[in-house]
Order: sequence, then structure tokens, then C-alpha cells
Amino acid sequence: MSIQFQIEANAGSARSGKLITPHGEIETPVFMPVGTLASVKGVPQDILEELGVQILLGNTYHLYLRPGVETVRRMGGLHRFMSWKRAILTDSGGFQVFSLNELRKVSEEGVTFRSHLDGSSHFFSPEGAMAAQIGLGADIIMAFDECTEYPAERERARASMEMTLRWAERSKKYFEEHKNEVPWGSCQLSAISRQGLQIPRSARDDSSFGPGSSSQREGKQVLRCAQDDSSYKNRQPLGGDTQALFGIVQGGMDRGLRRESALRTIEIGFPGYAIGGLSVGEPRELTREIVESTLEHLPADKPRYLMGVGTPDEIAEYAQMGVDMMDCVLPTRAARHGLLFTSEGKVSIKQARYAQDESPLDPNCGCRVCRRYSRAYLRHLYASNELLGQVLNTVHNLRYYLDTMRAVRHAIQLGERTRFLSEQSGPKP
Amino acid sequence: MSIQFQIEANAGSARSGKLITPHGEIETPVFMPVGTLASVKGVPQDILEELGVQILLGNTYHLYLRPGVETVRRMGGLHRFMSWKRAILTDSGGFQVFSLNELRKVSEEGVTFRSHLDGSSHFFSPEGAMAAQIGLGADIIMAFDECTEYPAERERARASMEMTLRWAERSKKYFEEHKNEVPWGSCQLSAISRQGLQIPRSARDDSSFGPGSSSQREGKQVLRCAQDDSSYKNRQPLGGDTQALFGIVQGGMDRGLRRESALRTIEIGFPGYAIGGLSVGEPRELTREIVESTLEHLPADKPRYLMGVGTPDEIAEYAQMGVDMMDCVLPTRAARHGLLFTSEGKVSIKQARYAQDESPLDPNCGCRVCRRYSRAYLRHLYASNELLGQVLNTVHNLRYYLDTMRAVRHAIQLGERTRFLSEQSGPKP
Repeated sequence: MSIQFQIEANAGSARSGKLITPHGEIETPVFMPVGTLASVKGVPQDILEELGVQILLGNTYHLYLRPGVETVRRMGGLHRFMSWKRAILTDSGGFQVFSLNELRKVSEEGVTFRSHLDGSSHFFSPEGAMAAQIGLGADIIMAFDECTEYPAERERARASMEMTLRWAERSKKYFEEHKNEVPWGSCQLSAISRQGLQIPRSARDDSSFGPGSSSQREGKQVLRCAQDDSSYKNRQPLGGDTQALFGIVQGGMDRGLRRESALRTIEIGFPGYAIGGLSVGEPRELTREIVESTLEHLPADKPRYLMGVGTPDEIAEYAQMGVDMMDCVLPTRAARHGLLFTSEGKVSIKQARYAQDESPLDPNCGCRVCRRYSRAYLRHLYASNELLGQVLNTVHNLRYYLDTMRAVRHAIQLGERTRFLSEQSGPKP
Repeated sequence: MSIQFQIEANAGSARSGKLITPHGEIETPVFMPVGTLASVKGVPQDILEELGVQILLGNTYHLYLRPGVETVRRMGGLHRFMSWKRAILTDSGGFQVFSLNELRKVSEEGVTFRSHLDGSSHFFSPEGAMAAQIGLGADIIMAFDECTEYPAERERARASMEMTLRWAERSKKYFEEHKNEVPWGSCQLSAISRQGLQIPRSARDDSSFGPGSSSQREGKQVLRCAQDDSSYKNRQPLGGDTQALFGIVQGGMDRGLRRESALRTIEIGFPGYAIGGLSVGEPRELTREIVESTLEHLPADKPRYLMGVGTPDEIAEYAQMGVDMMDCVLPTRAARHGLLFTSEGKVSIKQARYAQDESPLDPNCGCRVCRRYSRAYLRHLYASNELLGQVLNTVHNLRYYLDTMRAVRHAIQLGERTRFLSEQSGPKP
């Protein structure tokens, strides 16, 4: 299997459902925390599990540079590398190549760019981005697209959209030819646990997933995943599990182009569709408009992924419109800048007013940070540039985002869409 | 009570025992992690508890600057401020004032120095250092001493020792007059739980100690600790709990001066004694010599605290000599530099040789890091300057140190001193 998507409830345009991947189930609509370099900055994987993260996002551009695709592939893919047994989605690298690199050169073949780390020269193409993502082994991977700059004239947006479509064809072709090379499938342990059963890996008994896991300590023979260069290319993932490649709709801020991009991407055919090229500086009203109109052209029975959004209010809003998946660095990055989302509004924890505030960060939040620490302490940690401040801030903001989505899903299941939307203040206590 | 010290077993010079403080019991010999700014860098308090940390150290100099003694005092002291319900020891600030500040001016009164943060001018004296430590409210506090520089001529070491003794008298005098001002004692919750019982605070049912704790959520009346400026000065800590002030032996590298310092510090009289002014650049052989000879002059029935040491081998060695308490930034600071202590030797995780090493950091370690993550991942995190690397490295190194001391205590209890000392490689699996 690659993925299965089941819609379980509807409330207006909103849907709640389940996305079943080779590494576990995801309740949708879902917010995916960003784990750029195979780590959600500062938060250990067991805390992510405790927060209820079911899928996280890795950035192919960054992982390609460090530690490198080959290192991850040889370790059996990102899941094993970072000891994360739940789902992972990788982007194609396209966005960072465009946004982080001023000295890039785009051609029909692909994009030449310089590493932001050391200036070395690299080339990304649809084929290369697929090869990288196959080597990284995420459950869901993205077609290599051109994220159209904003603003863009209509002719420019069209030309960019057309190239994205040609790149989507090339992405899919390469993927179909090489998807069997995903480095998941060569663990003998997997073979034993999966004999005759369709069990997602997350359901395995091996709860201490990783190099020190009980199976290793008991001395069982475990084949190293993808250790042997020559053999992995021909190895079929066990149980037929493969990755899923999603297509990306572009078209700038033009509704007609967006419609055309959607229809022609659907023609190529993908198990899921993303809306890219938004949240690139356009006014929010325009974002909403484009999202709403684009969704009309995307199939209802496939997951719809809006890339790169948003604030807690925005993610609730887009979920209400019918978006199933979202990702954004906002909760994690804002946390590291001391900007914390609470049910009572945003808190900039560095402010002097919190220096002696004994109350919890968010009185309505049940996370480990709000249950234990005071605003005064969090403020001190931030002001003193203490690592723990970054960790605790991030844990809370993630909890806030995940609680927001949990409340949205619940509201959809209850058919209570209007009630939820009218409350601007986030999750109910 | 302030503290009680019970020796439970002896093996040669080594002793294992129990130090009972107002915030819980400590098994000795103990290694105290350093939580400089009210945080053991990067490690949340619940993880410290899980690691088995029973006492941690706070630096008065740093806390005096940030967040400031008054802020902590108003919150009820460090325990409440940082939500740590177990024991805390603070140093007097003397060491940092001497080591961090080149523009310091020492007089009989005290030390004028400039903040390393912003260059502002401050003055520390025995009285001021006591006032600060009382405001911070650690269970064990230290006399304000002069850490004699190394090397020092005998006359200089003598003069420095003599001033430390005069400062010790002043420290004790001020402490005895003001110890009732410790900001612990004004919580009504404490009153309720302690009626008629001598229970250390750590045994309270209120397991989610902190602002979001169940008692607060249930709406019980809880008096704020030390909120009211005018009232806290006269308030008796409940149950008669007070802090304990330890004296510090100086005398440079001269055995005669050390002996004299010890005897004259004992004359002043403290519930515990530290050996200061070592690990300041002298050869290790000399450190051992001075520790061994100084211990001969310290009372057997009081805890002996060797400040600022050491490596895992050293802490085991000093425990073997009869030291009961030690502290050092080494495990935490080395961790942040990727230098990890393992049962197979030191690992510098940034090295390229670990880039594809799937094995756990330490196959003999049961910590959450070694049970879950690979060396390759830890190496990637460090090389990519990821926060999580710092966190995981620190968790492991602390576990290693605490396991080392656990093994030392166990060996002492079994009377197996020679066997343990002869194994250089750290804790047994």
C-alpha cells in the first residue's frame, strides 16, 4: 500500500478523516510540525509522540546537504535515522532552492543553486528530487515544482505553472520507475512481524524502536536496512509498501490558472494534491480566495494539502474550507523567538511584565509546560538565552497547534462548524 | 530542621549515606549537576527527576544578575521559581566573581566587580552573599570565601585563607541573624500538609508541583509565598525548616595551611564543610594529595563537599577517599561540545567516523538517548548545530555521571572498594 484516505465526517466543506500510511494513521485535518533537519528543533521524539504528533515534515533541501541522502538511505531512511516510527512527509526541496538561494539559475532541466552553508554548487531536477526523497524514505513525498514568485504577471505565472506541470510528469515518471528503491523494506525484523499481516509499522511490538531496541539486545538477527549498495536497488519493500507522491497546484494568484493547473495535475494523476505557491507575501484575503476556489477543482476523495500555513486561526479556517493537511514553521520558529500562542491571545514572553508572573503560560492548556512552569520562569529562560526556554516554548506552541486541530476535527465530527469558526480564541478548555 | 546526615556504610575511607534536607533526601556520595541560571541547560525538570537527580546546584552570581534575587524571592525561592521540588545547593558567588571578572577589586569588605553581561558595577560581601542566598532559598548555601588563585606563594595563600576565615565568621553571623527570612515558609498548603508531621516537602501529594498544580486548580486557598514585602521578614518557616550554611576550607596547595584552615573553620562551626580552591589548574596528583590530607581534618560525621570536580574517574576516586558531595560543569558543558562519556571511553560525537554508525552511543547505558537514537543521528544533530543534539548529549552525560555515583554507592554498601577502583571504565552494565 502507499496511502489510503478515508473521510469519516463532513460539516459543510470541512471533512474529518483518516490518512493511512505505511507508518501509521493520521487523523485529518492535520497540522504537521516541521522537523527541518530530521529534528523538530529541541523536542525529543518521545515528547512529539506524547504531544500526539502523527506526521512530521522533513526538508529535502536541508537533509540533502546535511547529513546527505546517502547517509540516511544507508540507515534505512529517515524513520530509522531519526528513530521516528510514525509518518513523515518530505517536501521536494523546490521551495528552499527558490527562497534560500539568490544565486540560482533555473532552466527546463532543473535548478542550479549554491548551498547556503558553504556556497558549493548543486543541481536539483525533478528526477534528482525524486531520487533524494526516495532515498530519504518519507511516507508522502512531493513533486518537484517551481514556486512562482509573488507578485507575478499573468504570463509569468502561466509559464511557471506550465513548467511545474512538465516537472510533475517527470517527477511521476521517475518515481514510478524507482519507488521500489525506498530503503524501508530490507529489515528481517519487519519480515517476521509482518508475515501474513497488513500491520503498519507503528503497530509493531518493538516499542523501543531504534538501535538499542529489545530485539537487538536479545541478539536476534536483524538485517541492516539498505546497507549493501548493490542489493537495495532491487529489493521490494515488504508487504508492497511504497511511498505516495503528491502533485502540487501552482498558477500564482490567478483563479483561471489555478483551475487549469488543478485539472491538468489531476490528469497526470496523484494520490493527493497540494496547493503550493501561497503564503508568499500575498494579502490573506487573496490567500483565502485562491484556496477556496482551487479546492473546488480538487477531487473530494483525495487529501488536499495546503503548504506553508499558518496561524492557529488560519489553520482552523482552512480546515473549515476543506483542507486536510497543513505545515508551517510558525509554531516552532515563533517559539524560539519567545512568541507563544495561548487561548488568551499571543504572549511575547520576553516582556518585562511577565518577570514576576507566577501564573501558568496558558491556564487552559494541559501541556507539560503549562502544568509545571510559570510565566516568570519562561520569561527568565528566554531573557537568559537558556536552551530550556526554546525547548519549553516549542513544546507549548506545538501542543497549542495540535489542540487546535483536535478541536477542529471534533467540531467537524459533531457537525458544529459554524460554532467553532465564530470563536476566534482557539481551543476550548 | 536544616539538614541531617546519616552514614549508613563504610568501605575504607569511603562512606555511603543519606543527607536529609528540607526538600528531600540525597543519597551520598552524590554528584550534583549544575543548573547555573536555574536550569540544567536544555534538560527539563521532569527529565532530571527521571535521571534520579536529587540535588542540583545554582550559581548565585548568575542568578543575582538574572533574574535577580528579588524576583526569585518574591516567587517563594528557587524551588518554586524553577518548579524543582527536590534539593538545591547554591554557591556564594565568590568563585565567579573571581574567575569571570578581571576588573575586580578585593578589599576586606568584599569584592567590587563588573557584570560580565553589561559591565555594570556590583559589590559582593559575606553579608550580601548570605542575603542573596537566603533570598534564593536553596537548602544548602555556602560561605562567601576567597578562592585563592593558583599558583600562590605561601604568604599569599595564608593571607587569603585568613580572610576567608574572617569572611566565614561574617557569613555565619549574618546567616544566623537572617535565616528566618528564607522565603519558603509562607505557603498555607505547606501548613496543611505538615501539621503534626515531619515530612520533607518532596513527599507531598502535590505531584504536579507548580502554578498549574491540582491544589490550585481545585481552588484551594494558597497563600502566595513571600509576596508581601513587609511580612516575609518576620515569618518563621513552617516546621522550623531552615537552610544549612556550609563552611569552605582554603589554604592553597599547602598542607599545613589546609589543616589550619580546616581546624579553624570547624571552630567557627558549620553543619558541613567544603574543600574549595582546588581544580584551579594544579596537577591532578596535587589535587589528590590536598584532598586526602584535608579530609583527615574534617569531622567524619558531617558531609564533606569537594567543589568543582571532576571527570567520571575522578568523582569515583574522590568518593573513595571519603568525599560525600561534588559538583562540576563538565558533564553538561562537555555534552554541549559533543564530548560524551561512555562505558567504552570518551566519544567525540562530531567525528566523521560516526556519521553512519547505527549503534547506540553507549551499549551499556540504559538512558533514553542510548535506548532510542544512533550515533549517526547524534553526530548529525551536533554537526548541524541542532538544539536536540545539545539536549540529548546532556541527558546522556548526566545519566553516565549519576550511574557512576550509583555504582560507587553500591560498591561502598557492599564493602567492595578495591574492586571498583581498579576498573577504570566506569559503571558496570
